[in-house]
Amino acid sequence: MTDDELRRAVLDANLDTVRHGLVISTFGNASGIDRNAGRILIKPSGVAYDRLTPADMVPCDLDGRSLDNRLRPSSDLATHAVLYRAFADIGGVVHTHSTYATIMAQSHRPVPCLGTTHADYFHGTIPVTRDLTEDEIAQDYVGNTGTVIVETFADLDPLAIPAVLVAGHGPFVWGRTPAEAVHNALILEQVAKMAWHAMVLNPDPQPISQALLDRHFLRKHGAQATYGQDG
Amino acid sequence: MTDDELRRAVLDANLDTVRHGLVISTFGNASGIDRNAGRILIKPSGVAYDRLTPADMVPCDLDGRSLDNRLRPSSDLATHAVLYRAFADIGGVVHTHSTYATIMAQSHRPVPCLGTTHADYFHGTIPVTRDLTEDEIAQDYVGNTGTVIVETFADLDPLAIPAVLVAGHGPFVWGRTPAEAVHNALILEQVAKMAWHAMVLNPDPQPISQALLDRHFLRKHGAQATYGQDG
Amino acid sequence: MTDDELRRAVLDANLDTVRHGLVISTFGNASGIDRNAGRILIKPSGVAYDRLTPADMVPCDLDGRSLDNRLRPSSDLATHAVLYRAFADIGGVVHTHSTYATIMAQSHRPVPCLGTTHADYFHGTIPVTRDLTEDEIAQDYVGNTGTVIVETFADLDPLAIPAVLVAGHGPFVWGRTPAEAVHNALILEQVAKMAWHAMVLNPDPQPISQALLDRHFLRKHGAQATYGQDG
Amino acid sequence: MTDDELRRAVLDANLDTVRHGLVISTFGNASGIDRNAGRILIKPSGVAYDRLTPADMVPCDLDGRSLDNRLRPSSDLATHAVLYRAFADIGGVVHTHSTYATIMAQSHRPVPCLGTTHADYFHGTIPVTRDLTEDEIAQDYVGNTGTVIVETFADLDPLAIPAVLVAGHGPFVWGRTPAEAVHNALILEQVAKMAWHAMVLNPDPQPISQALLDRHFLRKHGAQATYGQDG
Repeated sequence: MTDDELRRAVLDANLDTVRHGLVISTFGNASGIDRNAGRILIKPSGVAYDRLTPADMVPCDLDGRSLDNRLRPSSDLATHAVLYRAFADIGGVVHTHSTYATIMAQSHRPVPCLGTTHADYFHGTIPVTRDLTEDEIAQDYVGNTGTVIVETFADLDPLAIPAVLVAGHGPFVWGRTPAEAVHNALILEQVAKMAWHAMVLNPDPQPISQALLDRHFLRKHGAQATYGQDG
Repeated sequence: MTDDELRRAVLDANLDTVRHGLVISTFGNASGIDRNAGRILIKPSGVAYDRLTPADMVPCDLDGRSLDNRLRPSSDLATHAVLYRAFADIGGVVHTHSTYATIMAQSHRPVPCLGTTHADYFHGTIPVTRDLTEDEIAQDYVGNTGTVIVETFADLDPLAIPAVLVAGHGPFVWGRTPAEAVHNALILEQVAKMAWHAMVLNPDPQPISQALLDRHFLRKHGAQATYGQDG
Repeated sequence: MTDDELRRAVLDANLDTVRHGLVISTFGNASGIDRNAGRILIKPSGVAYDRLTPADMVPCDLDGRSLDNRLRPSSDLATHAVLYRAFADIGGVVHTHSTYATIMAQSHRPVPCLGTTHADYFHGTIPVTRDLTEDEIAQDYVGNTGTVIVETFADLDPLAIPAVLVAGHGPFVWGRTPAEAVHNALILEQVAKMAWHAMVLNPDPQPISQALLDRHFLRKHGAQATYGQDG
Repeated sequence: MTDDELRRAVLDANLDTVRHGLVISTFGNASGIDRNAGRILIKPSGVAYDRLTPADMVPCDLDGRSLDNRLRPSSDLATHAVLYRAFADIGGVVHTHSTYATIMAQSHRPVPCLGTTHADYFHGTIPVTRDLTEDEIAQDYVGNTGTVIVETFADLDPLAIPAVLVAGHGPFVWGRTPAEAVHNALILEQVAKMAWHAMVLNPDPQPISQALLDRHFLRKHGAQATYGQDG
């Protein structure tokens, strides 16, 4: 992607989070990265969505420092930067307060894989982070939010489970591109919604079998993918 | 129906699943059949809905083999084909991941007939299939999904109960035409939604009486139907 | 109202039930009455809403006989006729399968007055009918649906509680005019929705005090009404 | 603000409550105050929203007396007036019957701070008032509704918790301006919705830590605010 294409992709990702009802008010932000240039582009902080243009996307380095002094970057930039540094294959990050994903995050409840909708996108349970300590909140709150996400993924592949619920906060979601990150955020909201409803009928619902999980996830991901017109 | 009419009917059925909110992303597919020609028409796999035209509907035989090499058919084709072979009177099949029907499928909960909305369309409980075995998943997953549906209907009339919940997956719905199948899918979602809510108040809600069930179902179906302007 | 005005009012009431999301498919009907002429006007059976015109509203007598042989009246006509005969002051009747009112009807749960939204329109609990007997279903099902509603209101003022939930079926709602009946159906759906949610937190929620109920209901109804610009 | 600007701001606040789905029918009202002139502007009672113009906003004094005899002010004026007298720093008040805030008010359940969405706007639990006594209802019901709100805030800062749930009734929300009051009402509805869902999974959910609450609230409020482009 050229810089212009990435600016447009990051803007579209931000607008799509609103269009899909994942963001109310300005509770959300999306970013993308140019891995060659080592440069993140992210939504500016607190600007109304209907005024955003590609030129407003704020360029930053991988340490989370703005490279532009016109607009202040999203207040969650430091979390995005930590994720880009730790997860080498991701190209876009989205943060929302979408209703059901946030309910699960506030309830400290991971989203188990209860069906094939989930299995098509997430290869297992979507985890919840631990709470941040008082020190972590006091010292570098936004960066430490990224750090606990990375800690949660110590034994997980971030492209197999491209989302996390930050305890008491809400979801961070990623993908190979900003558009894929938004799409994963939309699916996360739907599977979180269905999981909440299943848990109301049965507090401890049974995940689908490993065989069914593998069958669906691997149909759309990896070398054996057969879905769509390009397989 | 001519081939052109059936192509249009199958396209409309696919578009209507989206228009009614039964499908998010590309999680769904609708098909129709020309019984004389022994030919199924089905949505192509993974193509965006807003680009579909009647000419894109993929013709296939009753063994689930594509008769066209331009576009790959929906990845669920083999399930549709099994249903058309087993249920001789159906003319359309729809698969969605609609929210409440999927919640019930993920929860392994059949949808009991709790009211007349249900009774107008489904002559009794809408069943859930058993889980597929590991072997069934490994060998011919999509075809075996159809096989467990047919097994579930061993003692049921598929036109009296024109829907099923595939455990851990979602609904398959059918009808005499593709349009009727979509309409049944819409009603299924509404009765599943109402059943879920009733079960939250009372985990084991009482179905309506057989007399009331018969009164409503038979008003709209069969020789004594009196509803509408054509009776 | 002239005949033309009443035809328009009945058509609008039918269209408004759809516009407000109270009716899916053709699950609903609204009627009005010209008390001087002893004539009911009601929606025809099973005609798509977007094709209805004022001229399609079917005139019927108070015994539920059609006075027109072009279109068949709604299959629920006999229920409407019983209500007009028994409740002398009502001028419009609406039947819907709106989601939460139907959930409560299917669950045999009356809607208690839990707040002022309810109290502004309904002067107490909205009742559920008893189930119809097998004989009542076999012999004159639609008329007997009206009869059990009237039985439920033996000790209630139908203009103080202008709605009922028919067990295992859904709501019938009325008012001084067809427009008022639709408005009451909209409020019923909202108070049923809020009551369902309150009952999930607390299965036996506490109704508001009689003093608060009277204060709100009588503000909008009767000789002491002070709300709006006409008081 | 000039009188014209305040009239426009109050009208917009009223229209925005409808646009955001916080008000059904005419269940709601918004007002603003000119502190220098000691004059409240409020929506007229029972007028359809689509006909309202800035000139229809009714001027009233701080004792809740109308200063205009063309249109009657909202029937909730006396509550607004009490709040403006007691809370010296607020500039706008909004009353709605928004669904989840009203469910919590009807259930006498305060909204605990379960996440950062809440913490960004409300510095702690959103309280519920006590019930009004029979005497309070009989004598000056609307004014006494304001009085119990003020009583509930005896030890609370109304700009740190800019909302209350009136028991058995619904929310009153405020802010420095009418627009801020509407925005707070929108956020209240969302956090009440998420709290209801969390309470269904766990009747006694754990609030976030004081450290996280302070971190989020103080980021957007007070001298150390860093959010947006103006910090």
